[in-house]
Amino acid sequence: MPDTRIAELRVTPIAFYDPPLLNNAGCHQPFALRSIIEVETEGGVIGLGESYGTRAVLDGLAALAPLLPGLEVTDLNGLWAHARQAVRGGQEGYSGDERLLPRVVGAVEVALWDALGKTTGRRVCDLLGGQVRDEVPFSAYLFYKFAGHSGADPDDWGEVLTPEQLVDEARRFKELHGFDAIKLKAGILPPEEEIEGLRALRAAFPEAPLRIDPNGGWTVETTLRLLPQLEGLIEYLEDPTVGIEGNARVQAATDIPLATNMYVVHPSHLPANMAQDAFRVILSDHHYWGGLQASRELAKICEIWGLGLSMHSNSHLGISLAAMTHLAAATPNLTYDCDTHSPWQTDEVIEGGKLAFRNGRLRVPDGPGLGVTLDRTALARLHQNYLDAGITERDDATEMRKHWPDWQFGRPKF
Amino acid sequence: MPDTRIAELRVTPIAFYDPPLLNNAGCHQPFALRSIIEVETEGGVIGLGESYGTRAVLDGLAALAPLLPGLEVTDLNGLWAHARQAVRGGQEGYSGDERLLPRVVGAVEVALWDALGKTTGRRVCDLLGGQVRDEVPFSAYLFYKFAGHSGADPDDWGEVLTPEQLVDEARRFKELHGFDAIKLKAGILPPEEEIEGLRALRAAFPEAPLRIDPNGGWTVETTLRLLPQLEGLIEYLEDPTVGIEGNARVQAATDIPLATNMYVVHPSHLPANMAQDAFRVILSDHHYWGGLQASRELAKICEIWGLGLSMHSNSHLGISLAAMTHLAAATPNLTYDCDTHSPWQTDEVIEGGKLAFRNGRLRVPDGPGLGVTLDRTALARLHQNYLDAGITERDDATEMRKHWPDWQFGRPKF
Ligand SMILES: [Mg+2]
Ligand SMILES: [Mg+2]
Repeated sequence: MPDTRIAELRVTPIAFYDPPLLNNAGCHQPFALRSIIEVETEGGVIGLGESYGTRAVLDGLAALAPLLPGLEVTDLNGLWAHARQAVRGGQEGYSGDERLLPRVVGAVEVALWDALGKTTGRRVCDLLGGQVRDEVPFSAYLFYKFAGHSGADPDDWGEVLTPEQLVDEARRFKELHGFDAIKLKAGILPPEEEIEGLRALRAAFPEAPLRIDPNGGWTVETTLRLLPQLEGLIEYLEDPTVGIEGNARVQAATDIPLATNMYVVHPSHLPANMAQDAFRVILSDHHYWGGLQASRELAKICEIWGLGLSMHSNSHLGISLAAMTHLAAATPNLTYDCDTHSPWQTDEVIEGGKLAFRNGRLRVPDGPGLGVTLDRTALARLHQNYLDAGITERDDATEMRKHWPDWQFGRPKF
Repeated sequence: MPDTRIAELRVTPIAFYDPPLLNNAGCHQPFALRSIIEVETEGGVIGLGESYGTRAVLDGLAALAPLLPGLEVTDLNGLWAHARQAVRGGQEGYSGDERLLPRVVGAVEVALWDALGKTTGRRVCDLLGGQVRDEVPFSAYLFYKFAGHSGADPDDWGEVLTPEQLVDEARRFKELHGFDAIKLKAGILPPEEEIEGLRALRAAFPEAPLRIDPNGGWTVETTLRLLPQLEGLIEYLEDPTVGIEGNARVQAATDIPLATNMYVVHPSHLPANMAQDAFRVILSDHHYWGGLQASRELAKICEIWGLGLSMHSNSHLGISLAAMTHLAAATPNLTYDCDTHSPWQTDEVIEGGKLAFRNGRLRVPDGPGLGVTLDRTALARLHQNYLDAGITERDDATEMRKHWPDWQFGRPKF
């Protein structure tokens, strides 16, 4: 058995092209930031991970890196302990401590599973408890968007601000990838316009499960007023308003399950959520929940408490998508199709290019570990993008005002 | 990498000598039943497990056995699916379905971890996420007892029915094994006598954390009346009365944490327990909770909800003790010393004899997997015991009436 102790953690920040997608916080910038994680073992195997590329996560990973050599790739308890030390020690008074720790762990943990899998000839989904589905279903993730970035030519998708344009976008998603469920990113236009969009989608795709995600953009009162229009139309309502208490008031008023990736984003939020019956669907995300093992634990908690489970995504590339697919394939109680931004991304960092959806589904990549390999030419190019872009944080609000100068952030807004 | 698919599951029922220990349900019979599990892989490795030896579990394992060949030892999802099929299919209408399934899974699951560890040269505690403590602390598990079994000579421990005899028993436990915490099995004598015993233990061992476990033998009213005598005396109060609701009434009246291995014994009991704040300490037991992975998930839930965690035991031999020790060694939030019946057992089924406590603690056995090996001579002898004993169920009540003919079961009783 080759030596599976960690020899080195390498982190490469990258920036990749992102279209001008709208959300309650503003507009996606031309480049999305990400980090590519490589864990090399003493046995010479390299495990891969992909995570956030923002300053705090990169700093946390930099503080963690010197603590890892010698750690067994199976020692997740040790990883958490070292990460706790790195995040606390390196970021005195860092206000996002509670949120940063699982992000730093999650970034590295996936690479440990990949390294263990590659060493032992096992797939990550097998190491996570065994594959329970041949294919993982994903949803069409619709965004309102500008035709192109400020000062740039229109992109291939063009402008999407009306119900008709939304239907065209959805049609193209369906044609290219075959998704069943359709999710609409909302909280941008007046709610009535967004629901008009949902109705147009319902008319064009009578069978498609629909979802809407205002990202906390609606007040409780607005949401309560809109419920009659949403009932019978959507399979779940994602973060309509702000906070556990506010959403609990909404959940008490409707049978539509409320879903979240905003207010139950750390294990410490679960007791209040269960006690108040705020959200009945958790959108898990191994990137912020502390990795694949922690996400399997979250899934078990959802099963025990009778909550639904799906998967959240940020803009990401193929290593994240492979990890999400392995995790979903090993999670018995995945009750809704997963979200992914993947169709919006034109860059890729894995060899062979982007993983291809078939009928809206992905098969677990073949081969040990995650089943994907780093394209080092692409990595070098995307890292150069990062250096050239000169940004270290995501700032959707500033980007938004390049298009709509009077735009103001509000959560809730409507 | 050797083939780790399951070739065969073998189950050997055994019976081993057990002293006449008292509890709320009666008296331990002269023989305790247990099953020894062997999972042999296609690669020729044998993984070990130990579980209940009662009829229902043996029948469940017999129904599961033919479904397992070909399953990867890492495929815990597959194990649960097969066990669900075996338990449902084989025991139409079996009333203990919900309780039987995790028992059948737990019996086999430990053997799968052992087989994986032996194949890959890793210890089970490493496979479970990494060792977090060098030694696992156990408690002295005191029982009231008769001098000897009905019709037999007194055993080495003699009669224990008074406070003075309890202190002697505890002293011997401390001398032989060095335990810190002391647990008193209760619900047998009138509560005032049992608390008198606790006071004698406090006087003799001023520093020892004390616990008392009436096994639901007290009414809510009795428990509420006794609380002032218990406050400041014990570290937790285990299952004083019956059910989640009853114990929640007690917990609402005291700062003594209530602990349980009776009313939160299945994941489905957790939501009600959390909602009603009944028990603040869960005594986990991988034998009935569905194995080591499920027990790690329970530990995570206790951590998230801020509950204490310790470990329950039934009469058991060394394979169970090794599994408990690996699990506890890999569980960061073990907040109380574990229970074990091991000091009461004179038989053993592993090579080298019983694992030896030092200062009340066990080190994780050396070597891959669980680090223990089956003593096949002992196994054959204990299996012959099983055949000779001619019992298939535990019946403490009948045994009790051999000593105290007028004894009646009551829960609550006092
Ligand atoms: Mg969302
Ligand atoms: Mg108990």
